[in-house]
Amino acid sequence: MKSDLKQYVNEIQDYPKPGIVFRDISPLLRDHFPELIEELALLFKEDEWKEVEYLAGVEARGFAIASALAMHLGKGFIPIRKKGKLPPEVASIEYDLEYGQDALEMHYGGGNIILVDDVLATGGTLEAAAKLCKTTGFTIKGLLCIIDLKYLNSFSWEGESVRSLLSYT
Amino acid sequence: MKSDLKQYVNEIQDYPKPGIVFRDISPLLRDHFPELIEELALLFKEDEWKEVEYLAGVEARGFAIASALAMHLGKGFIPIRKKGKLPPEVASIEYDLEYGQDALEMHYGGGNIILVDDVLATGGTLEAAAKLCKTTGFTIKGLLCIIDLKYLNSFSWEGESVRSLLSYT
Repeated sequence: MKSDLKQYVNEIQDYPKPGIVFRDISPLLRDHFPELIEELALLFKEDEWKEVEYLAGVEARGFAIASALAMHLGKGFIPIRKKGKLPPEVASIEYDLEYGQDALEMHYGGGNIILVDDVLATGGTLEAAAKLCKTTGFTIKGLLCIIDLKYLNSFSWEGESVRSLLSYT
Repeated sequence: MKSDLKQYVNEIQDYPKPGIVFRDISPLLRDHFPELIEELALLFKEDEWKEVEYLAGVEARGFAIASALAMHLGKGFIPIRKKGKLPPEVASIEYDLEYGQDALEMHYGGGNIILVDDVLATGGTLEAAAKLCKTTGFTIKGLLCIIDLKYLNSFSWEGESVRSLLSYT
C-alpha cells in the first residue's frame, strides 16, 4: 500500500531551481486523500493515539495533513503559523533557511500533541516547530510527515525519529 | 449547536490594526474540531455531497477546513495556494487587497468541487479563488466558510451564496 502511493508523487526536475528535484504531493492529495490519511494514522499504534489530544500542523501543507488526521481520529487541530498570522499572545521562534531566516508562531497551551508536516527535508522547520511546541507548553508524543528525504537529513527530536509514509534515500 | 460554537471564537479588539475586531477561530479548531467539521458538512445535503469529488481550500486556514471535510466525506483535497508555492503548470489570478495586490495559483484539473475558506470578509479572496477554479476546469458546486462577516459583504458567486456556520451582522 505504502509503495503504491509513491507513484502519485510527481517529481519535478529543476524546481524551484536547477539541480533540485521537487516532489509534488498534489496528485496524492487530490486522488488518494482518505487512503493517504488512513495510512498515516497507522504509523502510530492505537495505544499511542489514545494519549494524544491534538494534531499540530506546520503552515501551510502541514495544516492539510494534521487537520485531516485530527478529523479521522477525533482530535483537536492546532496551527503553527508563519510570523504575523496569529493574534497575540503567541510564542515565536526564528530559524535558518538556506538563504536568510524565517519565523514560526504558535499560541500557548498544553497537552499531548503529535507534530505534523508534509515533507521532511533538512529538518530545520520541524526542529523549530518542535522547540516552539515545548515553549508553548505542549508535550510532543511523536512527529510525522508524508515524505522523508533521508538523503538530506538524519533528524530526530529528543531521541524520537520522525515517522514517515514515503522515504527517499 | 451552531450558536454554541460561536462562544469558542475569540474576539480580539484592534487587531491587526485599530478599529478592527479580529475573530480568532483557534479555540474552535483546538477544542471542538470534529464537531465543527460535522456541522459544516451539514450545510450541504447528502445528495449535494454525492456529486462532489473534491474540496478545494484557500491557503492557509482554508486548507485545514477543506482537508478535514474531505477526510470526513471521503473526497479529494485540492490546494489553492499563494503565488509561487505550486510547481508548474499552474493558473494564476491577481486580486486586490485593501492595500496592494495578491495572487492565487492552482493546478489545472476538472470535476465537481466545493470551494472552502475559513472567514468570508469582503469576498475578494473567495471571488478570485472561484474564478481560478473555473479557469482551471473545475465546476463549482458550492462555496462554504466557517464565519461570514455579513456586515462587510453581500458576496455570491453566479447566483450561489456562500454557506456559513457562524454569521455576524
